[in-house]
Amino acid sequence: MTPDVPAAVVELLQRPGCFLLGLHVSPDGDSIGSSLGLAQALKEQGNQAVVASEESVPTIYRFLPGAGDVLRPADIAGQSFDVALLIDCGGLNRTGTLEPFLHKVPVVVNIDHHITNTGFGDVSWIDPDAASAGEMVYRLIRKLQWSISPQVATCLYTAISTDTGSFRYQNTSFATLQTAAELVAAGARPFEVGDAVYEHKSLPAQRLLGYTLANMVMAAGGKFSYACLPWNVYEKYGAKDEDGEGIVSELRKTDGVEVAVLVHDTSSGAVKVSFRSRAEVDVSRIASRFGGGGHARAAACTFSGKSLDEVRDLVVAAVEEELSRQNRAE
Amino acid sequence: MTPDVPAAVVELLQRPGCFLLGLHVSPDGDSIGSSLGLAQALKEQGNQAVVASEESVPTIYRFLPGAGDVLRPADIAGQSFDVALLIDCGGLNRTGTLEPFLHKVPVVVNIDHHITNTGFGDVSWIDPDAASAGEMVYRLIRKLQWSISPQVATCLYTAISTDTGSFRYQNTSFATLQTAAELVAAGARPFEVGDAVYEHKSLPAQRLLGYTLANMVMAAGGKFSYACLPWNVYEKYGAKDEDGEGIVSELRKTDGVEVAVLVHDTSSGAVKVSFRSRAEVDVSRIASRFGGGGHARAAACTFSGKSLDEVRDLVVAAVEEELSRQNRAE
Repeated sequence: MTPDVPAAVVELLQRPGCFLLGLHVSPDGDSIGSSLGLAQALKEQGNQAVVASEESVPTIYRFLPGAGDVLRPADIAGQSFDVALLIDCGGLNRTGTLEPFLHKVPVVVNIDHHITNTGFGDVSWIDPDAASAGEMVYRLIRKLQWSISPQVATCLYTAISTDTGSFRYQNTSFATLQTAAELVAAGARPFEVGDAVYEHKSLPAQRLLGYTLANMVMAAGGKFSYACLPWNVYEKYGAKDEDGEGIVSELRKTDGVEVAVLVHDTSSGAVKVSFRSRAEVDVSRIASRFGGGGHARAAACTFSGKSLDEVRDLVVAAVEEELSRQNRAE
Repeated sequence: MTPDVPAAVVELLQRPGCFLLGLHVSPDGDSIGSSLGLAQALKEQGNQAVVASEESVPTIYRFLPGAGDVLRPADIAGQSFDVALLIDCGGLNRTGTLEPFLHKVPVVVNIDHHITNTGFGDVSWIDPDAASAGEMVYRLIRKLQWSISPQVATCLYTAISTDTGSFRYQNTSFATLQTAAELVAAGARPFEVGDAVYEHKSLPAQRLLGYTLANMVMAAGGKFSYACLPWNVYEKYGAKDEDGEGIVSELRKTDGVEVAVLVHDTSSGAVKVSFRSRAEVDVSRIASRFGGGGHARAAACTFSGKSLDEVRDLVVAAVEEELSRQNRAE
């Protein structure tokens, strides 16, 4: 059974007030959609609600109702709030330069679905069984018996769609699809969300993907694909760091591939390595050997003071060793 | 309101018998998933049910329960059937070399969601509001009050997921997501389906995509992206015709692009042109000028006796003309 929404959370939102909703650093669709959705719902009930973020909202999420009103930390200096709401945020320090402002708010509410959440805040509601924070906010609004406007529905649908990879990740459940259906009934338009989020890529991102797929190396008898993206390729295509994101998942799609690795330069000068695996190899173990971390299927690490080629040689050797260790174990 | 399942269809399926389910040519996820799902449900009720197809089941759908039992026309010669079921099939001639065998079956039932369906068959049930034939088969099985096994659920979920582009196309409705949720409750696993269908690409397909994105030309001030895939590139990567499918949709994702075109050689020697548009241009109008057709957002045409470069020049000129005509009209 789905655990109920804690009464303390419901009570805090029922009380009229001025709410500050903070996004986590590198905000994703769940952070943005859940926070914008709840802020909109609060405003529709006559409250003041401000969404703030260390970084600007990524282009693909700017179609969301309220995205243009997201403030930066400097914009809220001097403002006072009754309640801070942190949604999809594993720890208070995950809000970056917003954190000092959150410490000044008398009540901090923590709503999250990550099992690794630190449990910060005066009231915390963690549900690791929820596929996304968007699902939790939906349950909260229903519990409050507020109506769900098309604007709120669009925000929450986007949160759910993005955190489940368009209903394809392991976390996609009956509740996920059921909630998505109800949000469509409330006015969310799946095509509009899908088009904005999944059908827009910058030209430099397309060029980087093309370069990577054309130059990807197949190793370990086809179980391992890797590629390097040197900074001069970024420069050639006018690409920024963010244009390289997501490429490693495309490498993993290649038939037979168990581990995919992208070794790429960054604007800071550090070399970043992104790992993905399909089913067998725990890539967080490999990344942690180099001071990084992540999950079994997605991990990363960063090197300073080493060249791209040096990093590639280190990482490729580590992955091949892990794959042959697995082969022996089988 | 959703129109009810016709009583004639329900009655024919309630009668015990031997059923032949035919796939359409170039079978897609909806054709395969709906037919395998209904065949499995019929068998669970004690009937005989055979799925037949002119072509073999594409690799990405071979994980589906029953996919290994799909027969070719030659395999069913001499067998007799009581009822033929054509699902997601716009016309009887869309079954290719299977058609003569269907003519021998005493009763033909036509279940489809394409508004262009010819209305063939002894009993036909066309619901253009259904996002997929899989949704219709789900309603049919519920109407019959048969239980839905995990095998049936997996097939129907795949039909729905693929015909809605993983719940992102315009056809995705409340009913689509509601049905998907109920199929998950019945045992379909979204991750398993998503991984099999969307996360596997052949190495040659990856290389062709890389080549295309690296070489795509941006024209008409960024509103038009096009690329050519000559046969020597297919040969270099050991690619087959099918490895080039889907690439044109990747071109369209480029920010600002309204029309995307892929001009590619084929194994038959003909040059094929695939068109996609985002929102404004009706590409079926352009394709039809060259003897092709399709929809407003997706169309194609084929040229014989012309070189790739000749075709490119013709098509690029036609698209640029259409885009400048639109500009003037705005």
